Amino acid sequence: MGNCQTSSSRPKSTDIRISLPAVCIVWQTAMIILFGVFVRYNDETDAHWGEHMRQKNITSHVENDFYYRYPSFQDVHVMIFVGFGFLMTFLKRYSFGGVGFNFLIAAFGIQWALLMQGWFHSLDPVDGTIKIGVENMINADFCVAGCLIAYGACLGKVSPVQLMVMTLFGVTLFAVEEYIILNLIHAKDAGGSMTIHTFGGYYGLVISWILYRPYLHQSKRFQGSVYHSDLFAMIGTLFLWMFWPSFNSAIANHGDGQHRAALNTYLCLAASVLTTFAISSLSKKGGKLDMVHVQNATLAGGVAMGTAAEFMITPYGSLIVGFCCGILSTFGYLVLSPLMEKHLKIQDTCGIHNLHAMPGFLGGVVGAITAATASESVYGHEGLVNTFNFVGEFANRTVNKQGAHQAAGLCVALLFGLGGGALVGGILKLPIWGDPEDENCFDDETYWELPEDMESISPIHHYNHHSAGKHSDGAEPNFPMESVMS
Amino acid sequence: MGNCQTSSSRPKSTDIRISLPAVCIVWQTAMIILFGVFVRYNDETDAHWGEHMRQKNITSHVENDFYYRYPSFQDVHVMIFVGFGFLMTFLKRYSFGGVGFNFLIAAFGIQWALLMQGWFHSLDPVDGTIKIGVENMINADFCVAGCLIAYGACLGKVSPVQLMVMTLFGVTLFAVEEYIILNLIHAKDAGGSMTIHTFGGYYGLVISWILYRPYLHQSKRFQGSVYHSDLFAMIGTLFLWMFWPSFNSAIANHGDGQHRAALNTYLCLAASVLTTFAISSLSKKGGKLDMVHVQNATLAGGVAMGTAAEFMITPYGSLIVGFCCGILSTFGYLVLSPLMEKHLKIQDTCGIHNLHAMPGFLGGVVGAITAATASESVYGHEGLVNTFNFVGEFANRTVNKQGAHQAAGLCVALLFGLGGGALVGGILKLPIWGDPEDENCFDDETYWELPEDMESISPIHHYNHHSAGKHSDGAEPNFPMESVMS
Amino acid sequence: MGNCQTSSSRPKSTDIRISLPAVCIVWQTAMIILFGVFVRYNDETDAHWGEHMRQKNITSHVENDFYYRYPSFQDVHVMIFVGFGFLMTFLKRYSFGGVGFNFLIAAFGIQWALLMQGWFHSLDPVDGTIKIGVENMINADFCVAGCLIAYGACLGKVSPVQLMVMTLFGVTLFAVEEYIILNLIHAKDAGGSMTIHTFGGYYGLVISWILYRPYLHQSKRFQGSVYHSDLFAMIGTLFLWMFWPSFNSAIANHGDGQHRAALNTYLCLAASVLTTFAISSLSKKGGKLDMVHVQNATLAGGVAMGTAAEFMITPYGSLIVGFCCGILSTFGYLVLSPLMEKHLKIQDTCGIHNLHAMPGFLGGVVGAITAATASESVYGHEGLVNTFNFVGEFANRTVNKQGAHQAAGLCVALLFGLGGGALVGGILKLPIWGDPEDENCFDDETYWELPEDMESISPIHHYNHHSAGKHSDGAEPNFPMESVMS
Repeated sequence: MGNCQTSSSRPKSTDIRISLPAVCIVWQTAMIILFGVFVRYNDETDAHWGEHMRQKNITSHVENDFYYRYPSFQDVHVMIFVGFGFLMTFLKRYSFGGVGFNFLIAAFGIQWALLMQGWFHSLDPVDGTIKIGVENMINADFCVAGCLIAYGACLGKVSPVQLMVMTLFGVTLFAVEEYIILNLIHAKDAGGSMTIHTFGGYYGLVISWILYRPYLHQSKRFQGSVYHSDLFAMIGTLFLWMFWPSFNSAIANHGDGQHRAALNTYLCLAASVLTTFAISSLSKKGGKLDMVHVQNATLAGGVAMGTAAEFMITPYGSLIVGFCCGILSTFGYLVLSPLMEKHLKIQDTCGIHNLHAMPGFLGGVVGAITAATASESVYGHEGLVNTFNFVGEFANRTVNKQGAHQAAGLCVALLFGLGGGALVGGILKLPIWGDPEDENCFDDETYWELPEDMESISPIHHYNHHSAGKHSDGAEPNFPMESVMS
Repeated sequence: MGNCQTSSSRPKSTDIRISLPAVCIVWQTAMIILFGVFVRYNDETDAHWGEHMRQKNITSHVENDFYYRYPSFQDVHVMIFVGFGFLMTFLKRYSFGGVGFNFLIAAFGIQWALLMQGWFHSLDPVDGTIKIGVENMINADFCVAGCLIAYGACLGKVSPVQLMVMTLFGVTLFAVEEYIILNLIHAKDAGGSMTIHTFGGYYGLVISWILYRPYLHQSKRFQGSVYHSDLFAMIGTLFLWMFWPSFNSAIANHGDGQHRAALNTYLCLAASVLTTFAISSLSKKGGKLDMVHVQNATLAGGVAMGTAAEFMITPYGSLIVGFCCGILSTFGYLVLSPLMEKHLKIQDTCGIHNLHAMPGFLGGVVGAITAATASESVYGHEGLVNTFNFVGEFANRTVNKQGAHQAAGLCVALLFGLGGGALVGGILKLPIWGDPEDENCFDDETYWELPEDMESISPIHHYNHHSAGKHSDGAEPNFPMESVMS
Repeated sequence: MGNCQTSSSRPKSTDIRISLPAVCIVWQTAMIILFGVFVRYNDETDAHWGEHMRQKNITSHVENDFYYRYPSFQDVHVMIFVGFGFLMTFLKRYSFGGVGFNFLIAAFGIQWALLMQGWFHSLDPVDGTIKIGVENMINADFCVAGCLIAYGACLGKVSPVQLMVMTLFGVTLFAVEEYIILNLIHAKDAGGSMTIHTFGGYYGLVISWILYRPYLHQSKRFQGSVYHSDLFAMIGTLFLWMFWPSFNSAIANHGDGQHRAALNTYLCLAASVLTTFAISSLSKKGGKLDMVHVQNATLAGGVAMGTAAEFMITPYGSLIVGFCCGILSTFGYLVLSPLMEKHLKIQDTCGIHNLHAMPGFLGGVVGAITAATASESVYGHEGLVNTFNFVGEFANRTVNKQGAHQAAGLCVALLFGLGGGALVGGILKLPIWGDPEDENCFDDETYWELPEDMESISPIHHYNHHSAGKHSDGAEPNFPMESVMS
């Protein structure tokens, strides 16, 4: 699979004038109908909150979950739209597509996520409706993050219609695996190392593998960055990096849970910056730094702390995780990405394997180990119960068993990513979605009206003519692989 | 009016070396004096807060309004300075003016707004002083937003001195209409669909109409965007989009009021993204998307939810409003803007009619309908009283009457916008303000020291010579109208 | 000193392939070890928080300091990484170094600051460990701010290894001077006019003086900005400007302390925008504005309000401080920077003397005066005690004495800046750090892999040949001085 596609003799149509509007309008209409049937305000969002307060003996409005979580929600929201969006503007001529399509699919995804997650987690048993509030908003943003990660692997090679399909299925799969991991297996994953990053990463990689483009080198002129596109990408990087402590703590337990998750993530991220710079410098002649590494590998610490952030991993434990992740992720960009493209036929535009899949998997492992080694002496009895939610049917679970269940959860995330990616990749391979020719990948011209300054620099025919002899092998590595050690 | 201005034979002076410093220094000095006479800390900002807590039986510092509202304030603050500022950087050669003058007039406006709004809303009857705290800071930012919207219509065509004058009068008018709408009419408008967007939109449009420039096509070379200026504008768009839930909830009631307003706005905005992409794609050959729409129409949902956000409009109701607004606003960019320029002689640089005036008006209508159809079965008695503040002299108001009063409030906002715009437009037409020639509009060269790379691309004389024959009609539509259906 | 360096005959090596990775890996490893030995969760971050609540009779999770301070922390965090980072992207060809090295040294600095400040402020006397939580995170970010200010003076002229050394010593010196000022002298300095800005400013200026480069004009082709680099810098400016109220209030007292500090800073910053625009316009032919001033001097109000923000300085007092600072700082860019370069041999790339050192010193003076004139009639007895923390051994301190101690604190900050700068400047002058030749300063080519569009514009040899005759004097002022009155 993957390498059976030839540079099609009949040019593909990238006309999405019917398909994109149709998908947007029809799906949005479906959202309205489904919301009309299913979605209602929860106790803390409803105008009956005052009565609810009296019933529950709540004395202050500040106990409304809004005040515990809304600042974190806004940080997460910035990560989704500016963080992921601008991180994907690094290509010299696909910045509109990077930030614009990210905007589109995230806006659709959060609506669908409110429904899918609502059916699994917030269904009112009395009237069968979904009751939503700020925590649902955070979870919807989380769910969308998984799909945006998958977009990173496909950046520049798919049409917006494909992205909408990828998001529809991605959110659905996410909600199911999340339910299995968090509710059935009862694993903890506040920051989503498993549910978000492992799932999203492998989901995107398998899709990218199935959509393998053997002649992608034909769009080599559009690959790589320019100076200012790298700076736009740094906006994304920094907002992700700064707000990751909010991401990992947003739905952690009130009090020490949120506090500790933020602190651990803050430390872990700081450490991964230093090791990223170290390995990046070490890999190049003269010790020159590579923006690809700085933009991406510095974030690996946040990914890897997604499960264990709310545990008592200790401050130095957080630093150790960050230390390892910065090295691992940079190493991935240097070594693994070129190998994966050459031997596994996986073209991973943003290198999500190095930023999300690997560190996410590592984060799941760290979480399992940290859980298995938890003890009452460290947490206190009450702390242990609260942190791992050992109540109800799970009241008698031991920490060892919890560790095993964390590992099981990781496997579920992995399997859903691989299996879901295969399913959705197959669907996206149908020749009906308006995706571009290999030679027009990474080019905003395909889907966007471009300003004059960009219209003038698209010498496609000249280029192909000129470079026909240079790029004759079908497996020339593309830009993320240019960061190989010199 | 409007079309009586000719391309003046005597070149206008754009020298503002006396006027701008004079205005800044004198007005800032006036602010200091007026603040000295009138403005004091309120109970929650004053060092006597500890005593105040005991008197009022407040047991925790967290009940200080700072903790309820400051995170929302900061989000609003980002919208005002980065959101509006960067949204206006889209022009290829007026980005300094876009973000820089936005900075200047907002910094002045918030001071004047603290005074004007203070006299109407926060006057201490005992000592005649204005007592301020975080809610005043939010309201001042809100008030300034109205003036920044008006700036959007005039972007590139006015001098900074004119902008200061426009802000001085705009804030004054805003405070009066707000007092009438909120206090006398007792309409609710937490997110300012009426007071901010309807008022600000029509205020700017009428000013732009009065300052009509028949030869604006002479600066055609500076119109439109370049690739990276569109990306800078996307920074503005996204920060506005992400933080709009904070905008509409910032001064809503504690507890469910803020919570619900944020949730409704979040949903409404998501829906308007999808319909914006749909209509944008539908309007162009090949289904290509237009950055003008993505940058602007996606925000219309936030504008239209400004009045009803704190009501029980229901989640699907929010989606419906967003659905309609995305379509309406994109349609405005495609069809109405060109028509308005051609037939009404309104040159609306940023298309604020489509982003603020129309959706704001619609938001006022939605608010009136939602209020008129409110019921105790939905809100609960207590919820109804709290949401609409049916206390004191308004204790016996019915929801139907409230709906009518909402509509009356909308009319007041509209009238103040139209009338105020006419008054201020007349003042700004005086030939003393240092505004640029038609051929030098949209050019930062006029008011800014430019870096080398920009100095070299100003071939004014060559251009005029070269293109004299092409642009002979006086009503050639300018760039926002270039987004007409192809 | 300073001017004894010649344009070395043997070209310097800027190869940092060993030194930078070595420093990053070794120091990060040291951090892990030291954290392992010393750093633990504090009561509010630890899983025993539930038990702690019962012991202390705390009834709500919202009393966890996380909810009081985390939103402010995130604002401060944005200032450190995006604010300072993007403010330093203004150079046309050193934007990677500006934002990238800022990222590196801040990530290292916060770890080292947690340790250094922890030993002085958060040491648990029982077990000798440092107990950390959100307030430590804020203080670590504050501490790093001092080093980033110093980086501003050296921007483009030092290697990343030098920056790491500068940060190591800077954080150490900061922690000591902060301990002396806040604990021994018992001065108040919530926003760090003295501890952060005065110290950091003079620390950087003295280092820059010692590292004086007489032939810096040889890199003149890289000095100054381009249009879009100025816009990137405005992102930094605006995030600093918007979030400065959070900076000055982040560690102020709960309740009125935080509330008042935010309000005062908000007002002060607004005023400094107007006077900055006024002086900038006044200084140029035609009243044209200078982006250097808008990017920097507008922030001076926040710096100068760092000490007095939590005092009862009154709203109009805040405006007066902002009024003066905008003028002073812009005047500094216009007049003092060129003079300092010419006569004092201080090459201050970002003009930190005008933005941090001077306004910081002024802020210390304002703080001393405001403290000395405090009274029970204004603060109330309880307010006075709380605001100045007149408890324990300081219970009998008078406000006059407090004013004198504030002044003493300012002197300590100044001395530590000057002395520390001399020490560290001497160390950084050793020829082992990989800093660039004078002709390669301000050039990302030295330490970064650059995208194609930048590789092609580096005509070093051509330039030198071409311009040899023009720049024969060794003291030609560099770009920040180009803003001299015309």
